[in-house]
Amino acid sequence: MDGIGIGLIGTGFMGKAHALAYRAARAVLGDVPPARLELLCEVPADKARAMADQFGFARSTDDWRALVNDPKVDIVSITTPNRLHKEIALAAIAAGKHVHCEKPMGMTLAEAKEMAAAAAAAGVKTIVGYNYIKNPAFQHACRLIRDGAIGRPIHFRGWVDEDYQADPNLPWTWRARLEEAGLGALGDLGCHLVSMAYGLMGPIESLIADMQTVHETRALPDGSERKKVENEDVATALVRFANGAQGSLAASRTAWGRKSKLAWEVHGTKGMLVFDQERMNELHLYQNEGERALQGFKTILTGPDHPPYGLFCPAPGHQLGFNDLKVLEAGAFLRWVGGGGKSSPDFSEALEFEKVIHAMAASAREGRRVSVQDQAG
Amino acid sequence: MDGIGIGLIGTGFMGKAHALAYRAARAVLGDVPPARLELLCEVPADKARAMADQFGFARSTDDWRALVNDPKVDIVSITTPNRLHKEIALAAIAAGKHVHCEKPMGMTLAEAKEMAAAAAAAGVKTIVGYNYIKNPAFQHACRLIRDGAIGRPIHFRGWVDEDYQADPNLPWTWRARLEEAGLGALGDLGCHLVSMAYGLMGPIESLIADMQTVHETRALPDGSERKKVENEDVATALVRFANGAQGSLAASRTAWGRKSKLAWEVHGTKGMLVFDQERMNELHLYQNEGERALQGFKTILTGPDHPPYGLFCPAPGHQLGFNDLKVLEAGAFLRWVGGGGKSSPDFSEALEFEKVIHAMAASAREGRRVSVQDQAG
Amino acid sequence: MDGIGIGLIGTGFMGKAHALAYRAARAVLGDVPPARLELLCEVPADKARAMADQFGFARSTDDWRALVNDPKVDIVSITTPNRLHKEIALAAIAAGKHVHCEKPMGMTLAEAKEMAAAAAAAGVKTIVGYNYIKNPAFQHACRLIRDGAIGRPIHFRGWVDEDYQADPNLPWTWRARLEEAGLGALGDLGCHLVSMAYGLMGPIESLIADMQTVHETRALPDGSERKKVENEDVATALVRFANGAQGSLAASRTAWGRKSKLAWEVHGTKGMLVFDQERMNELHLYQNEGERALQGFKTILTGPDHPPYGLFCPAPGHQLGFNDLKVLEAGAFLRWVGGGGKSSPDFSEALEFEKVIHAMAASAREGRRVSVQDQAG
Amino acid sequence: MDGIGIGLIGTGFMGKAHALAYRAARAVLGDVPPARLELLCEVPADKARAMADQFGFARSTDDWRALVNDPKVDIVSITTPNRLHKEIALAAIAAGKHVHCEKPMGMTLAEAKEMAAAAAAAGVKTIVGYNYIKNPAFQHACRLIRDGAIGRPIHFRGWVDEDYQADPNLPWTWRARLEEAGLGALGDLGCHLVSMAYGLMGPIESLIADMQTVHETRALPDGSERKKVENEDVATALVRFANGAQGSLAASRTAWGRKSKLAWEVHGTKGMLVFDQERMNELHLYQNEGERALQGFKTILTGPDHPPYGLFCPAPGHQLGFNDLKVLEAGAFLRWVGGGGKSSPDFSEALEFEKVIHAMAASAREGRRVSVQDQAG
Repeated sequence: MDGIGIGLIGTGFMGKAHALAYRAARAVLGDVPPARLELLCEVPADKARAMADQFGFARSTDDWRALVNDPKVDIVSITTPNRLHKEIALAAIAAGKHVHCEKPMGMTLAEAKEMAAAAAAAGVKTIVGYNYIKNPAFQHACRLIRDGAIGRPIHFRGWVDEDYQADPNLPWTWRARLEEAGLGALGDLGCHLVSMAYGLMGPIESLIADMQTVHETRALPDGSERKKVENEDVATALVRFANGAQGSLAASRTAWGRKSKLAWEVHGTKGMLVFDQERMNELHLYQNEGERALQGFKTILTGPDHPPYGLFCPAPGHQLGFNDLKVLEAGAFLRWVGGGGKSSPDFSEALEFEKVIHAMAASAREGRRVSVQDQAG
Repeated sequence: MDGIGIGLIGTGFMGKAHALAYRAARAVLGDVPPARLELLCEVPADKARAMADQFGFARSTDDWRALVNDPKVDIVSITTPNRLHKEIALAAIAAGKHVHCEKPMGMTLAEAKEMAAAAAAAGVKTIVGYNYIKNPAFQHACRLIRDGAIGRPIHFRGWVDEDYQADPNLPWTWRARLEEAGLGALGDLGCHLVSMAYGLMGPIESLIADMQTVHETRALPDGSERKKVENEDVATALVRFANGAQGSLAASRTAWGRKSKLAWEVHGTKGMLVFDQERMNELHLYQNEGERALQGFKTILTGPDHPPYGLFCPAPGHQLGFNDLKVLEAGAFLRWVGGGGKSSPDFSEALEFEKVIHAMAASAREGRRVSVQDQAG
Repeated sequence: MDGIGIGLIGTGFMGKAHALAYRAARAVLGDVPPARLELLCEVPADKARAMADQFGFARSTDDWRALVNDPKVDIVSITTPNRLHKEIALAAIAAGKHVHCEKPMGMTLAEAKEMAAAAAAAGVKTIVGYNYIKNPAFQHACRLIRDGAIGRPIHFRGWVDEDYQADPNLPWTWRARLEEAGLGALGDLGCHLVSMAYGLMGPIESLIADMQTVHETRALPDGSERKKVENEDVATALVRFANGAQGSLAASRTAWGRKSKLAWEVHGTKGMLVFDQERMNELHLYQNEGERALQGFKTILTGPDHPPYGLFCPAPGHQLGFNDLKVLEAGAFLRWVGGGGKSSPDFSEALEFEKVIHAMAASAREGRRVSVQDQAG
Repeated sequence: MDGIGIGLIGTGFMGKAHALAYRAARAVLGDVPPARLELLCEVPADKARAMADQFGFARSTDDWRALVNDPKVDIVSITTPNRLHKEIALAAIAAGKHVHCEKPMGMTLAEAKEMAAAAAAAGVKTIVGYNYIKNPAFQHACRLIRDGAIGRPIHFRGWVDEDYQADPNLPWTWRARLEEAGLGALGDLGCHLVSMAYGLMGPIESLIADMQTVHETRALPDGSERKKVENEDVATALVRFANGAQGSLAASRTAWGRKSKLAWEVHGTKGMLVFDQERMNELHLYQNEGERALQGFKTILTGPDHPPYGLFCPAPGHQLGFNDLKVLEAGAFLRWVGGGGKSSPDFSEALEFEKVIHAMAASAREGRRVSVQDQAG
């Protein structure tokens, strides 16, 4: 049987992104083992069949348990609602499968810890869908920091804002429930920001946070009653990094006009780096170098000089898109599963990101500085 | 035999883009007949085999004549150097194939006319690789103009700049020869701009142009001698549209810092639209509406409200990339070839774009206003 | 004696700005009593003479005590180093003068409180140099919020960054001493941000802050030793406003590349407002109004529709500059002193801004949330 | 009598700008002889008195002939409607006054030539109000080009767009008449662009232009009839510079959303410079230098490293405004009149700029390339 068998669960936003990514990875990247689109799970069964046909999967099912136990499936790709991540991942791990799970891993820190522990115990390979860190512009930023282009990093500011819950008239949904959705803006958005902060600055040691639920209740779709929104619309933290730097993290799902505003700036002793996902092919760099009258922020347009951009396109400035980031993620995992170098973040690494968002929630509840590592599951 | 058989000639910048696009089109777009990646042509044969393996083509060849005559090939996709377009296209048309040809169709207007005539006579379906007009942001702009969002279009300004020939120290190559490359900046870049101008403003009737070859000679790679650069580095035209509007078009391959600066603005009697391919997910709109103190240019981030963006991603502002535009182009052609609605631009429509760049060259040589339709082939 | 007599102390950055502003105010604004540039104080006396000649002051002195007691002086304008503000202001108030003092009023909260109390007791008129809030773009933002253009304000983010202390190799100066400079980035920059936050959002009730001194020591100019930097390079706070909104404030004097990055965003239930002093003639507005496919951030260029811009220039988009803001400040104070409406912020209002920066310093020292009003002087 | 006596004619947009500029020049710049605001001319006489009082002029008149012959007036500053420029300037020159005239000098090239000849014959000093070239950002750009920062300049693109005539419903006014206004967008706006092109690139030798009157008729204010608009709304030219470079110039007064879009880019063999007056404190520079992965356009914020910015403010990025440019212009002229170095552009230099706009109009009328120097007056 040629290639690595992919079993994909879910066909929504992330399901489609995974399907496209596994379909494209080798054609784009070259040095990646072939992926075999083996089995697609969706409900009901006829939708599963239709989507398998569209995405090019060989077979379909409406039973995720069948999928995780299918002998032709090597990688189980989980893109279901968050509340199912843990159960499916544990079953897949138990079946000896490698697991590609969307973020956040779990709704609670306890879930994420259990998943990471199970994967470690079973020795299967894992990856979590922190696709934004695959961006060549981001990888370039990390290299620049490592190479000292901005000196010693001293301060970090990050924001991740969208407006999908900004409208007060949106109805109450499962998104508003802790039991079904887990965290709000922190789980949807905040953890992506943390993944970038870690790549640029390293681990966060402690933080103080505040949270707010802007729209405290929302009407049921039928208008019969208003129900409480249980999780946060906005969260902000002051953080201290292990490297001695300070900084702040902010996440909002009620930020009108922001569509994918995952943005940050790293202040260094010799310069600054600035990024904004809404212009994901640009990196802004200031360096205290050369004649002062010529200093300014440079807008670096990503191109072949920023690997692996060139695998998508040999011409600079031609723009990668969101789905291309997922191709890089799937490709990296295929390489590892196929025997190549390790890809990141695996469950244990992603757990570190998710500790931070749960620490933020805990700090906000308790009104005090908390240690990221001390968080109870 | 399931699906529409694709025979792709070339594996460079555009070859890879076509391969990825045909591979992804149905998975992304849904309502597209399946494409069968049947045959890939490259030289030498072992490179053809390797690339076929990477891209997922069933077979490979080093003989384009074999490809255009292969019974399992329905669409011949031509991504070779420009000087081969005509010969291959004519052979494919003679073999009754549908043809997907990269732009510009021909090195001369005579070539392009011959190709368009042959396709029309044979009744095969054709499309030319003017992918930028597939951008949802661009399609939205066209809709806005049709709907009167900026009133009557009165003026157009367009630029298309890159810097791949900006360095005086680059060696002389085939790109510098009229016989091998045809036009310079106009053929590489200018025709893309024309395709956008036509979509927004309709046909151009006449123009006056000027051209310059900035680097008049370049050294051979071995440094033995300097040879003449025969085609233009920069060209600019003042144009008059059939709708009564005026405007200007400019193209440069020696514009340091510009990587994909395909940009334009449309002035209307009620507002303005502005676009820049280097930020291809943004459209800028000014409307003389509402309170004056609140007027300003709006930055519209493309999203699901701008079809067919939503087929790539249900979340706004998440960014499409260059290769996604090619997916839309391949998908549109697959629909037509599969019996659906006509896709554009076919050879006869693309011929209109290419008349403009040749009219620019003629006007610049002759120093006078020329009619676009009067251009001799 | 015609006009309101101005006695200006200091001829540095702010001294010159005050001189230009009082010189221009009536010519620009029209409805302002004439200012008489009466007396300029600087040391040594010959520099005072030379600068009085340049700025157009009638007389000069090297003795600020003479100035504050001069019978022809009505307004004492204090632009000395911060450590002298209190003593001079108290002397001027004692002499019955109206006082225009640069920010921050005092090095400590106790100083600021003493100044505000003295002014209140004496009944003299005062103003503090929070010039950024005079910007027509800012005033427009405040009006938009009051008019409900973005609904209920729910979140505020503000930053004020410069890089004048970013270079690790800058020598140790008085700026580094608590006793001479008071606070660092908070006093120089942070209080400007607070003045804007108050205008947009109203009072801050409590906050949690963190601070860092990035460059802990600096070398004396002669290189003989390294001395401790006693005040903060960077400070950040999570704040809660009296109106129920949350937000964050950040200030840095070590932010390479930032020259006057006094920037903020106000999130509302119906839209967002964004501003950046480095592009001080622009206001960015998103409103959830009209067709979704047309929504986007609008860049509003300030013009005559945003009073009092038109007093400087009848043409929109022609740009005001930093010194123009000072003209508005001086003009507003001249109007009040001349019997017109009250100008802001007077000492008691500015005291509220300065309470916030001292609360930030206190919270950072103590590691806990503090109430802004509970700050001991 | 101390200082150089200023006689100002006009109190509109430019009149006020001149008044403020002469009032501020020495205070800002220091090394400038004092200006004495001697006499202000406006009609009717009571308005002249009121504005003289506001601006700080010693006396007022409603008779410009009295002003140009007043013995206490040294500089006659002309800010009347264009149709009066010539008559007043010739009278002032005849009276031996130095003349500061707003642009364009004359409504026709013949007028401008007559004015330049008269000034030359009389030996008086002159300056024309091309204030945008005084911008420190622009002066820095000129220095960078002279110093080779972008290599040899090869191409220039410039635009100057506003929207004050964009609304089709604006009434017919004197602006629409050749006899009263002279040229349209070219006279109001285009000549400013030419002044920048000359500073950056040197003289223009020949050009081909096209023009359009977008709104061919406008209704009289009382709605009684529609009258013809005699001058151009939009004009564009392809130009050839004496240095061998090519380029284009465009001007529009019907460009919705553009408020002061005086923008240009200079392409060089080693880099590019880009400027936009709507962000007049920024200069954008790309240089083909250093590591390719770090190349990008730099946004240089003007500051003290870009003289004479520091005379306004010692802190970078704090922003100059439109009126500050006029201060620099007035200051330069005061220096020359006071015996210092020559200021620019005098009438003979400004005549060169104005030849270009008249050459554009002639080329558009005649449909052929014209030589700038061959223009009949």
